[in-house]
Amino acid sequence: MKAGQYVYPFAQGDKSMKSLLGGKGANLAEMARIGLPVPPGFIITTEACNQYLGRNEGLWPELKSEILENLQQLELEVGRSFGGERPLLISVRSGAVVSMPGMMDTVLNLGLNQTTVNYLADEAGNRRFALDCYRRFIQMFANVVLQVGHHLFENILTEARQRKNVRTDSELNEADLEKITAQFLDLVRRETDGEFPEDPQEQLFLAVEAVFNSWNTNRAVVYRKANRIPDTLGTAVNIQTMVFGNLGEDSGTGVAFTRNPSTGEAKLYGEYLLNAQGEDVVAGIRNPHPLSELKGDMPEIYDQFLQICNKLEEHYREMQDIEFTIEKGKLYMLQTRTGKRTAPAAVRIAVDMVGEGLISRKEVLQRIEPDQLEQLLHRRIDPECNDRYIARGLPASPGAASGKVVFDADKAQEMAQNDEKVLLVRPETTPDDIHGIIAAQGILTSRGGMTSHAAVVARGMGKPCVSGCEDLQIDFVKGLFTIKGKDYKEGTVISIDGTTGRVFLGVVPMIEPEFTDEFRKLLSWADEVRRLKVRANADTPEDARLAVELGAQGIGLCRTEHMFMAADRIPVVQKMILASDLKEREAALCELQPMQQSDFEGIFKEMAGYPVTVRLLDPPLHEFLPDREELLLEVDKLRREGSDSSLLHEKEKLLHKVRLLSEYNPMLGHRGCRLGLVYPEIYKMQVRAIFLALFKLLDEGMPEEKLQPEIMIPLVGHREEMARMKKLVEITAEDMFAGKGKKLTYMVGTMIELPRACLVADQLAEVASFFSFGTNDLTQTTLGYSRDDSESKFLPYYLQNKIILINPFAEVDREGVGKLVEIAIKRGRSTRANLKLGICGEHGGNPASIEFFNSIGLDYVSCSPYRLPIARLSAAKAALQG
Amino acid sequence: MKAGQYVYPFAQGDKSMKSLLGGKGANLAEMARIGLPVPPGFIITTEACNQYLGRNEGLWPELKSEILENLQQLELEVGRSFGGERPLLISVRSGAVVSMPGMMDTVLNLGLNQTTVNYLADEAGNRRFALDCYRRFIQMFANVVLQVGHHLFENILTEARQRKNVRTDSELNEADLEKITAQFLDLVRRETDGEFPEDPQEQLFLAVEAVFNSWNTNRAVVYRKANRIPDTLGTAVNIQTMVFGNLGEDSGTGVAFTRNPSTGEAKLYGEYLLNAQGEDVVAGIRNPHPLSELKGDMPEIYDQFLQICNKLEEHYREMQDIEFTIEKGKLYMLQTRTGKRTAPAAVRIAVDMVGEGLISRKEVLQRIEPDQLEQLLHRRIDPECNDRYIARGLPASPGAASGKVVFDADKAQEMAQNDEKVLLVRPETTPDDIHGIIAAQGILTSRGGMTSHAAVVARGMGKPCVSGCEDLQIDFVKGLFTIKGKDYKEGTVISIDGTTGRVFLGVVPMIEPEFTDEFRKLLSWADEVRRLKVRANADTPEDARLAVELGAQGIGLCRTEHMFMAADRIPVVQKMILASDLKEREAALCELQPMQQSDFEGIFKEMAGYPVTVRLLDPPLHEFLPDREELLLEVDKLRREGSDSSLLHEKEKLLHKVRLLSEYNPMLGHRGCRLGLVYPEIYKMQVRAIFLALFKLLDEGMPEEKLQPEIMIPLVGHREEMARMKKLVEITAEDMFAGKGKKLTYMVGTMIELPRACLVADQLAEVASFFSFGTNDLTQTTLGYSRDDSESKFLPYYLQNKIILINPFAEVDREGVGKLVEIAIKRGRSTRANLKLGICGEHGGNPASIEFFNSIGLDYVSCSPYRLPIARLSAAKAALQG
Repeated sequence: MKAGQYVYPFAQGDKSMKSLLGGKGANLAEMARIGLPVPPGFIITTEACNQYLGRNEGLWPELKSEILENLQQLELEVGRSFGGERPLLISVRSGAVVSMPGMMDTVLNLGLNQTTVNYLADEAGNRRFALDCYRRFIQMFANVVLQVGHHLFENILTEARQRKNVRTDSELNEADLEKITAQFLDLVRRETDGEFPEDPQEQLFLAVEAVFNSWNTNRAVVYRKANRIPDTLGTAVNIQTMVFGNLGEDSGTGVAFTRNPSTGEAKLYGEYLLNAQGEDVVAGIRNPHPLSELKGDMPEIYDQFLQICNKLEEHYREMQDIEFTIEKGKLYMLQTRTGKRTAPAAVRIAVDMVGEGLISRKEVLQRIEPDQLEQLLHRRIDPECNDRYIARGLPASPGAASGKVVFDADKAQEMAQNDEKVLLVRPETTPDDIHGIIAAQGILTSRGGMTSHAAVVARGMGKPCVSGCEDLQIDFVKGLFTIKGKDYKEGTVISIDGTTGRVFLGVVPMIEPEFTDEFRKLLSWADEVRRLKVRANADTPEDARLAVELGAQGIGLCRTEHMFMAADRIPVVQKMILASDLKEREAALCELQPMQQSDFEGIFKEMAGYPVTVRLLDPPLHEFLPDREELLLEVDKLRREGSDSSLLHEKEKLLHKVRLLSEYNPMLGHRGCRLGLVYPEIYKMQVRAIFLALFKLLDEGMPEEKLQPEIMIPLVGHREEMARMKKLVEITAEDMFAGKGKKLTYMVGTMIELPRACLVADQLAEVASFFSFGTNDLTQTTLGYSRDDSESKFLPYYLQNKIILINPFAEVDREGVGKLVEIAIKRGRSTRANLKLGICGEHGGNPASIEFFNSIGLDYVSCSPYRLPIARLSAAKAALQG
Repeated sequence: MKAGQYVYPFAQGDKSMKSLLGGKGANLAEMARIGLPVPPGFIITTEACNQYLGRNEGLWPELKSEILENLQQLELEVGRSFGGERPLLISVRSGAVVSMPGMMDTVLNLGLNQTTVNYLADEAGNRRFALDCYRRFIQMFANVVLQVGHHLFENILTEARQRKNVRTDSELNEADLEKITAQFLDLVRRETDGEFPEDPQEQLFLAVEAVFNSWNTNRAVVYRKANRIPDTLGTAVNIQTMVFGNLGEDSGTGVAFTRNPSTGEAKLYGEYLLNAQGEDVVAGIRNPHPLSELKGDMPEIYDQFLQICNKLEEHYREMQDIEFTIEKGKLYMLQTRTGKRTAPAAVRIAVDMVGEGLISRKEVLQRIEPDQLEQLLHRRIDPECNDRYIARGLPASPGAASGKVVFDADKAQEMAQNDEKVLLVRPETTPDDIHGIIAAQGILTSRGGMTSHAAVVARGMGKPCVSGCEDLQIDFVKGLFTIKGKDYKEGTVISIDGTTGRVFLGVVPMIEPEFTDEFRKLLSWADEVRRLKVRANADTPEDARLAVELGAQGIGLCRTEHMFMAADRIPVVQKMILASDLKEREAALCELQPMQQSDFEGIFKEMAGYPVTVRLLDPPLHEFLPDREELLLEVDKLRREGSDSSLLHEKEKLLHKVRLLSEYNPMLGHRGCRLGLVYPEIYKMQVRAIFLALFKLLDEGMPEEKLQPEIMIPLVGHREEMARMKKLVEITAEDMFAGKGKKLTYMVGTMIELPRACLVADQLAEVASFFSFGTNDLTQTTLGYSRDDSESKFLPYYLQNKIILINPFAEVDREGVGKLVEIAIKRGRSTRANLKLGICGEHGGNPASIEFFNSIGLDYVSCSPYRLPIARLSAAKAALQG
């Protein structure tokens, strides 16, 4: 770039200059550079735009001169004159760095006026054509540059058609168009209190200013906010010689993808219309033809186009989205850009291109957007389906399901046993609802966040769940639910999409997940290059099996509390909690132990050869007790009735305990190792169950080296907590080893989920053999955001209003949480060089977070099984970037 | 110290060697060194103790030899023989570095056996005396060394007295004592399956071992845990020649303080008994005489003792606690140590000693324990009073009060109007109870922690409060409250002490606070040396006035929400919260504005010339709404009755809102600047109220430079939050300045209470002019401790079991929270060199925390008004240490 240069002829640009010339301009220049037939033109840079917006004084003289110089060059090149006898007509288009709706799009045929329209008529030998171009120009220019309402022009056209009693504009004749043109100019005069500009230079400068100004229209600003595009980029302006697809049957226009954007099939895909301009294709009055038919209409052009498409794909090494025009038997390329595609197509195209030798495996991995692949992994509601949308909640567990609404877990179970598909719809769920959750296709709750009981259990079971749907109110008495003032009966069929949080009425079209061979191939390439290991968060043998299938190299988080939640266990767990002394509690724990043991057996069996990190009990005990409000009303009722005093007494005792255990801020309460310290018998039972399971598998012939237990102590903040809990594990283990006459290898480590733990990580690493960062809770404590509350309260507001740009629960907050993780790694390794480091928060399945975790040197990430493919790809991408 | 030297004669020690010789031993050596009459002896070091405990093999030969060498020296020095004809008798005493109950105390008369008792009898010319010494020795030795129960010996003595029909042991004659001695030896034989050791060397070694072993008795371990004394210190053993106060009327024993330990008066204070040993004084059978009477009994000894006391005070430059014995007209000093004293005495002694030129002001400030002074600032229940103690809760607001128990705020108000003293006793309080709190002498709640509504409001009003008293259950229906199974009627008089959390039955003796001239003088000296400024947390004009009286140099935290809590305001606040749109909300805010304004007027007036930091609204809005459970029952009742549908509708709406606003973890919820961002109209109203108050004061003639408003934005975690809130303040202010035609000076800063804020402090300091560390919340988030929950759940267990050593809400956690504060200071100053830094958490009134805050360079600490004197002293102490 020359200093002070604000205008570039196509010949001076190339595809590397996107930030200066915008995406469209850079690609036009590139096509010209590699010898493709592009109508000549030039580009006014994004810097000119920023200058213009900063000055706020209109186009300045030097810029105008530079534009005019380039215009003169263009006149020379094409042998035409702007405003002269062989009139140069141009298109003026905006061209941002990233394609952006909401900005001024296009003015075509600029340079026409009452004089040049006659020259054009003479030259084309077609006055109707010239008049049609003129009226289109007036309409577009007046609309996008002078802000005259589009409908006003349409009214005039409609009137003309009605007068003639015809259906389409193409049926209007020269005289009609003469009249319409005059009416258009009158309209502009009335609406703008001025004449439509006759001077082509004035037209051009006004159009350029309009493009610049469109950068700051409300819609453009909103779009940039939503898509996190910096306001400082600015837009370029593309000025290009007009070519016409509507000059007869030897002319035409079309669009094409170099491969099928839905399936990825390696075959040209597109459509065209003869004797038409681009806007005619869009208008939908005539049906465009499939591109393959062009071969019959214009065989040479078709061959040329095929060659060009191949050349573009080879050149860009990427599937292209192309616009072209044929003017009197000559092909012109008007645009090329990377084509958008569905997830299955993205995978197939990538794998095919590697097969074709077009790109390398590494390039594929760098290019693919792992997040896009989520849709390959879960059933989802067709994104095109919007008309039956009724409400939105939180996307608590991915997947989609339809079923009859049921308010009650017992009823859900009963109906499911009769092969009815049901959705369990509740204000919130509690452990008492487990059998209903199991029976239902999916869960919808009106309260609760991403970490509510419903959400956690549903994710654990791989069932779709929409939680915290505040639009929904349930009236149990009347058997109704209300959404936005409208009542629906229990039993109404609805559909939910747990990936998006959307709720629909009735059964809606669903798209099934596709786990293709190409996808598997892609993942295997990812596995070859990634440094980060990938583990799964899995709490059951079934999850473990799925995890291994999806490529897990271990379990990074096995939450033992989920084993407590099963319907047959909850009563025992409650007995344990309500125990009035240690003896009673130990008796209940004795009952639980074989249940836990059998879960562990299943999990360790599935994970043979891989490490399994078992987290000892974490949630506060009140999570296992009944809902306080319901209990309160029940006690109140029993008291009023005064009927069954022993039942009342029992319920009163339960309410007392629920109250006693209830916490103001359970997130910061009596949970994690704080339970293990105050009730060591619980953790001891869990440790015994783990080792009993291991011994059982050994007895059954499992080779010892295939068992790699890692016992994880949650919520540690002080060295002493970790030291005592490690001691408890060791004493319990040694005791069992003595009994069995055999020692097993195991590790004891901690979950890092408190800021304090990060700050004293050097002390913790003295006693912990591994750290697993629980970034969910670490985010809650570091930012002071209760996940359950913030996602239903201020966080959406924060994101919408750009107070923060990224949801810290979706992508790790690098400046806060990330900084603490870095501090912890540094300090932890200072006292234990071979400290094993992983992360088991939900960020473990988020691509941007994985990139960060790779860069700071973690050993592995752990995520829910269905996110494993995404994690594997993200880890590969991160390795290649690093 | 010589390498390998484990025994030190007094002549080789001095007071600087406490850690090696123990406190008692070092002081004995020191007294000997400065020429005071001390019975000769030697000390076995703490290192010997640690060696012994580490080896676990008994006393080793080298140590025994060293002891015997020193014993021989002692024999030479006093001209006596251990076990020989002119028998050397010794006392063996433990002597830890810090005086510690629970360890072996003393064995007297060691060296006596069936032979030497006769030598002693001959030498003293008094066989009864010798026999009495002997039976005392057997009893003490057998008890503390051989673990024979004390009561077994007492039984024999009682039997003997009964046989003779006498009241005291001194009435027993030689024959009685002969028999008793024999019975004692028999008893030992039976209880220990062995003979009482006759060999004095064996006696000595056994006694030394017993002292060493007593370091690890259960009681000693528990005491060390409770008092945070390291287990590694070990104890020394003091071996000293016996002197006898019971050799006739020219002998005696006594204790003395060099000044009055209760009042601090500079006058010798103590008591003595003639012809007695120390244990006789303790036994309380004979009443000791005031020391002044010794002047009549033994004028020369008295003068000598006075001189020694003066010498000791001059030498130690501190009030001394002394033990002495007179043996046949010769005075011996047995112990000296720093005397314990009451808080008023401590202040008076310190100030007097400065007046006497004994110590410097700086020394006084370094020596005083600021925490001890708390009792000078609040009324408290006499610590001696224990017999009417019935329950304990959390010490939620200091001070003490008595009154009739009332369960209902209305009734409390009514009774108070009839001049009855009441205590409001509730499960929890809500804003609806405010008039009851105002009317009551104090508040007692069965639920809720240190930051519960009751606690916060009570502290704000300076009223005593005990919260979270879980032993207490209230039965509203029966009009009873139950404590530990015992029922009490409403109306029962009880007393509470909010400094200790204790609850008593009836009216109990109280000690009024004493704010003496000496105390004021001490504080003025502190002000001269401290670097840290001291501010108060004050929310009302009354608090502000008190703060200035107690030395505040500004308000560090003015919580505007307390202004919302008043009975006349709560309805308006609720109207604001329940507003269905912005217009309704703004109308309610309009009503609130003049109320807030008048508070601000009062506060700024009181604080003329000092900065006032006003924190904009912080707590989640649901804190201002009624209790959810009560409302639920009410709605349920109305529904069942089906009577008044408009009332039901209103209550249902309220319940819906309460539910909608309710949060799982309010601590991490929609509060602080998150309110200000989502409801900017609330903060705007508050800012307007501040500036209107300032303009009003200006109009009334207040000089402008006396107004120093600092507007504080709470709970900031991201730069953008601070930037937007600052903008809101600025726009609101500029608007008002424009209206008034005058600009005022003000600052906008932030409260740092989230880990993230510390980590991005450099970014925050770009927009914030000051940081005030809210270490309460920073502790909650950094450690993941909900204050309300942890203090009633795991924290007491953690402290008792030494999992953590310090309550992080009482003293700042240096390794976690402290580290974050340091990070924040460093980063904050990196972008704003003159950043004003303070702390306004409750740690601002804690001496150890103040020392830390001084060391890391804060500008000021802010605490509740009543802690200001403590903060001033602590700041001075910190400055002197720094």
